[in-house]
Amino acid sequence: MKPFMDKDFLLSTPTAQALFHEYAEKSPVLDYHCHINPQEIAQDRKFDNITQVWLGGDHYKWRFMRSCGVEERFITGDASDKEKFFKWAEVLGKAIGNPLYHWSHLELQRYFGYTKALSKKTAEEVWNLCNEKLTGDSMSVRNLIRRSGVTLICTTDDPADSLEWHEKIAADESFEVQVLPAWRPDKAMNIEKTDYTDYLATLSDVSGIQVDSFAALKDALKNRMDYFSARGCRVSDHALEYVMYRPASDEAVEAIFRKRLDGAEVTREEELTFKTTFMLFVGREYSRRGWIMQLHYGCKRDNNKLIFEKLGPDTGYDCINNYAPSAQMADFLNALTCTGELPKTVIYSLNPNDNQSIGTILGCFQDSTAVAKIQQGSAWWFNDHKIGMRDQMLSLASLGNLSGFIGMLTDSRSFLSYTRHEYFRRILCELIGELVENGEFPADMDTLSEIVKDISYNNAVRYFGFDLKEV
Amino acid sequence: MKPFMDKDFLLSTPTAQALFHEYAEKSPVLDYHCHINPQEIAQDRKFDNITQVWLGGDHYKWRFMRSCGVEERFITGDASDKEKFFKWAEVLGKAIGNPLYHWSHLELQRYFGYTKALSKKTAEEVWNLCNEKLTGDSMSVRNLIRRSGVTLICTTDDPADSLEWHEKIAADESFEVQVLPAWRPDKAMNIEKTDYTDYLATLSDVSGIQVDSFAALKDALKNRMDYFSARGCRVSDHALEYVMYRPASDEAVEAIFRKRLDGAEVTREEELTFKTTFMLFVGREYSRRGWIMQLHYGCKRDNNKLIFEKLGPDTGYDCINNYAPSAQMADFLNALTCTGELPKTVIYSLNPNDNQSIGTILGCFQDSTAVAKIQQGSAWWFNDHKIGMRDQMLSLASLGNLSGFIGMLTDSRSFLSYTRHEYFRRILCELIGELVENGEFPADMDTLSEIVKDISYNNAVRYFGFDLKEV
Amino acid sequence: MKPFMDKDFLLSTPTAQALFHEYAEKSPVLDYHCHINPQEIAQDRKFDNITQVWLGGDHYKWRFMRSCGVEERFITGDASDKEKFFKWAEVLGKAIGNPLYHWSHLELQRYFGYTKALSKKTAEEVWNLCNEKLTGDSMSVRNLIRRSGVTLICTTDDPADSLEWHEKIAADESFEVQVLPAWRPDKAMNIEKTDYTDYLATLSDVSGIQVDSFAALKDALKNRMDYFSARGCRVSDHALEYVMYRPASDEAVEAIFRKRLDGAEVTREEELTFKTTFMLFVGREYSRRGWIMQLHYGCKRDNNKLIFEKLGPDTGYDCINNYAPSAQMADFLNALTCTGELPKTVIYSLNPNDNQSIGTILGCFQDSTAVAKIQQGSAWWFNDHKIGMRDQMLSLASLGNLSGFIGMLTDSRSFLSYTRHEYFRRILCELIGELVENGEFPADMDTLSEIVKDISYNNAVRYFGFDLKEV
Repeated sequence: MKPFMDKDFLLSTPTAQALFHEYAEKSPVLDYHCHINPQEIAQDRKFDNITQVWLGGDHYKWRFMRSCGVEERFITGDASDKEKFFKWAEVLGKAIGNPLYHWSHLELQRYFGYTKALSKKTAEEVWNLCNEKLTGDSMSVRNLIRRSGVTLICTTDDPADSLEWHEKIAADESFEVQVLPAWRPDKAMNIEKTDYTDYLATLSDVSGIQVDSFAALKDALKNRMDYFSARGCRVSDHALEYVMYRPASDEAVEAIFRKRLDGAEVTREEELTFKTTFMLFVGREYSRRGWIMQLHYGCKRDNNKLIFEKLGPDTGYDCINNYAPSAQMADFLNALTCTGELPKTVIYSLNPNDNQSIGTILGCFQDSTAVAKIQQGSAWWFNDHKIGMRDQMLSLASLGNLSGFIGMLTDSRSFLSYTRHEYFRRILCELIGELVENGEFPADMDTLSEIVKDISYNNAVRYFGFDLKEV
Repeated sequence: MKPFMDKDFLLSTPTAQALFHEYAEKSPVLDYHCHINPQEIAQDRKFDNITQVWLGGDHYKWRFMRSCGVEERFITGDASDKEKFFKWAEVLGKAIGNPLYHWSHLELQRYFGYTKALSKKTAEEVWNLCNEKLTGDSMSVRNLIRRSGVTLICTTDDPADSLEWHEKIAADESFEVQVLPAWRPDKAMNIEKTDYTDYLATLSDVSGIQVDSFAALKDALKNRMDYFSARGCRVSDHALEYVMYRPASDEAVEAIFRKRLDGAEVTREEELTFKTTFMLFVGREYSRRGWIMQLHYGCKRDNNKLIFEKLGPDTGYDCINNYAPSAQMADFLNALTCTGELPKTVIYSLNPNDNQSIGTILGCFQDSTAVAKIQQGSAWWFNDHKIGMRDQMLSLASLGNLSGFIGMLTDSRSFLSYTRHEYFRRILCELIGELVENGEFPADMDTLSEIVKDISYNNAVRYFGFDLKEV
Repeated sequence: MKPFMDKDFLLSTPTAQALFHEYAEKSPVLDYHCHINPQEIAQDRKFDNITQVWLGGDHYKWRFMRSCGVEERFITGDASDKEKFFKWAEVLGKAIGNPLYHWSHLELQRYFGYTKALSKKTAEEVWNLCNEKLTGDSMSVRNLIRRSGVTLICTTDDPADSLEWHEKIAADESFEVQVLPAWRPDKAMNIEKTDYTDYLATLSDVSGIQVDSFAALKDALKNRMDYFSARGCRVSDHALEYVMYRPASDEAVEAIFRKRLDGAEVTREEELTFKTTFMLFVGREYSRRGWIMQLHYGCKRDNNKLIFEKLGPDTGYDCINNYAPSAQMADFLNALTCTGELPKTVIYSLNPNDNQSIGTILGCFQDSTAVAKIQQGSAWWFNDHKIGMRDQMLSLASLGNLSGFIGMLTDSRSFLSYTRHEYFRRILCELIGELVENGEFPADMDTLSEIVKDISYNNAVRYFGFDLKEV
């Protein structure tokens, strides 16, 4: 029996262990996609207790607590931080097979030096230990980032965002890690939302361009892209229901936009048409600017309306939407390709059943402008566990170029989540180790170490074109 | 090489073996979902020969025989019982990788004490042995149930059923196992069927409520729910094409129902609308009564119309229907949630591709009224094998609360099928053993044994609220 | 650590090794589905260099090179053969986990005796070795076929094809391997294509039947089926978007066909209706003639229109189409069943998610006219790798009759691809070995060897009814 989560956690072969400890573990972290708050970096926030860090905004943990029948007051309610932590410790102690178990213990090990298992029995001990550690300077946001070997972070930002905190961080010479904005214009696309015209008003204000037509919307967005570019942005991100393709003439799209501006609701068909044209527009702009286009899809959000009224979005009530026609995604990418305007693109589905269709679509749009120009994004959100990551990598390897994979992201709101990169790298090294130990690939450490370092770090450096050195 | 199906069948690690033999194997069986005939229990039926028990009504076996090119007369036709058994033995001998191989041999081992392999070569030996054993009292239906450690059985019953056999069993003090009805109102929902109005006439008679409107149908069903409740029913079951959501006003649904009563056919759209409203109605009633709602979907039935004319339903001609939009299921559950009327719900899809979308939907509707209030049902029917069960449990563990899982059902028409619980428990213990031996979860036998006993038995006791003691 | 791709490649247990080396490895190859050019067999082509053999038409390799950012001129462009080979060697050296890695090295081992790994470092050595070997007579097309143990090949042919090369091969007594045509009438079905009427003109010429109605099209096709039958054809093959079912009257279909003949475009609905009727027609003809119907679906072709204009079809720009309603496939097969006209049918989806729905559909249409009359085809195209083949076989075993499986095809344009049969057999033997070593099936070598030989060769001999001896 292997010891519980020791240094060779998830690494069962000598090859896997060597690859992890000699290469993967030593590689820096380039976190090109997360949801952390730049203000907390700018202000170098510290935390009062482990509940703040762990349970303050982590809807993954909230969901799990609800699945265990924990009352909402111990989750998002008015129970004390200590009570909440104890409830969490109790349910975590039985969370066998759940990635939260591993994420939480990796965080306890790396940031707090706690190597035993957290459960009801050890809750008091962990509570005290963590809270004491959190008083130290090494546990400030900036130091957590530094200790995690992070060289660059991309946050997630709305086009109307001022990026003031990014500017402050950039101007602060005492912090050496790059913190860059990423462009997420969902609000500008979601024409069906009730507050869409409010958003356009905000965008008009910020850009100085009166958004009274779709043409003007495009101008306003280009204006903001310039603004983001000037602050180092190179990455966009889109949350799509699915990658749709319903092309239409400019006139038709202007008419839909006009209808919405006039206060009417758009039909489902009009919504899909508008969004298609919107995505083609931004795709072309990204291509022009050398930005990367990230497409996330397969998620249905805020399914529990009763709770949504109370808690709002991103509180643990999302699920997989299993409608995602691969034919439309292929047609969308083709439309950009035909005019030579397909940007580097990263495709993520929340539905693991899409692994293979994505894997085959990648191959239709690769070209020599980049190694693995079209990427399948890392196993995301609900797939961010051992099986999900393994399946994504095995599918990618079987259908395309695993060696060119840009690897892991955190997609997280927490400053302790960098251990997810460690988790990913262990799974990667185990998988490669298996192939080698099984005689399926030569035991050539020069090649293997290059592959591991590339997927851990270097591929992302090259792919995104950030100002970073390879290792 | 491990010996063929010995005591450590499917158990490859010391942890798995210990968990199975010390805890899982000793736990009773709560078979909350099956299709056995209560009359046979009431009358304590005995069987003349092994063909009666095994091949009399088991369409799983019939399908396999047809896949091997066996003539129908040896399957459902006029060949002798012995001829049929010999054909079965012959094809089973080559059924590598099929769960029928394991189910059959577990039954031979547990009920007949036969530990070798059944094949053409051993057919005569097995035929004689089994038939001799079947003459003994220990092989009567009640004794098979007793020997299997069963504490409670839920059959599957139509609202119009008199439940006379359940009453007889309950009144018979010589039989200590609870045999309760389960409520399966498919016939009351399937408005598109040609014999729908005939069924309504039957329901009117039985309930004493003239079903001349949808409102009256609801009254009649509530009347029958009361009748079922009085006889211990706590579980419902629905066979749905998919979990649809097409809400409509009461007036619209009354109009559809009226149209059907008047002898017209309903459109597909009307059918879906009616069924949505029907399901919302029963869901609310279940919530009110504390009943559990089981939703089965993803099955297309009776696909071979040529044979259907001859043999009728449930004869081995069903397949997976892969249309099942997760978005509609989420909206359906939300509709019940918004008014506080979502009952405890168990969701089963026949399509294993739905594992992950179901896993994410569960998390949107959990609350503190129960541990794992919304469950993903055990791998069902065509998924009732090693890979299917393992995938279902790994998906559930990765996305939710495996420890709260209510575990296995037989879904069977046979009194020998309780070994499927054993099969399930071996797979469960192997899976948990792997995680522990691999260092992914602590080797804490207190916690592990609790998890194993809970999934084997205790969770179901608590979830369904039956009058049973935990172990 | 196992040595790199040695004699026990992919075979980890004694049972697997024994089954492979004693039975599978010694079985001949019946390649019932490929795309090789019969002219090259008739003329016993030899190759100038390894680039011609490997990279001349292999869009699998082209795709992979593009995924690595290789410029198109080194793929399909005007770079020299040596330059192209060196680029291939460079990217292959990092193709960990991709089946191209294994296919290529099996070919190097079996046909060129090269047992080290091909990479940038060894490119020169391999280039020289292969090209020298290619000068020998043993590397002519016919000798490659002989050395591979092939007894029969089915090519892929259009109804309008003269089959002249098949006739020449058949007439040549110096070549003992049967090379038979297979019937692929896609062009006669694809009514939506711009060149459809041109094709009908060709078909009219070849058949001597003026195709001026759908009835005449059927006559022309029957005429050509007779022609194919006379040249040994027993197998058809259809590339479908999905297996659709939109039945219509003869009159309605004639009207659609008339519309198209008159130069109009057909609607999507008309296309699906026409194709349904077309497929029902050919299915009935196949049944009458004892031909096998192969249905391939789940592919969306030629997705990159920019490249399609330059390179044409089959150049590496296809992807999985994930729309494939299982309900329609079941209804299509039922329609043929109801009149007793369902031929032996082999179903392949490009989407591995369809494994289970296919597995359950098979069981609805099996009968005693053949063992496993309805087959799930081997893991195809993008699934033609270790995981894909394993998943297909495990699904088939769990849901049906693995022992009756007709096994592997090459689907290849290359004369070196017969090693894919070896690859498949290694995976098969490993899988069976696992079940046996794990105690899930008896270690009875009589039964096991029969199963392995059957899946490797004998099942196909029996199923297709070719003039071949079992082994």
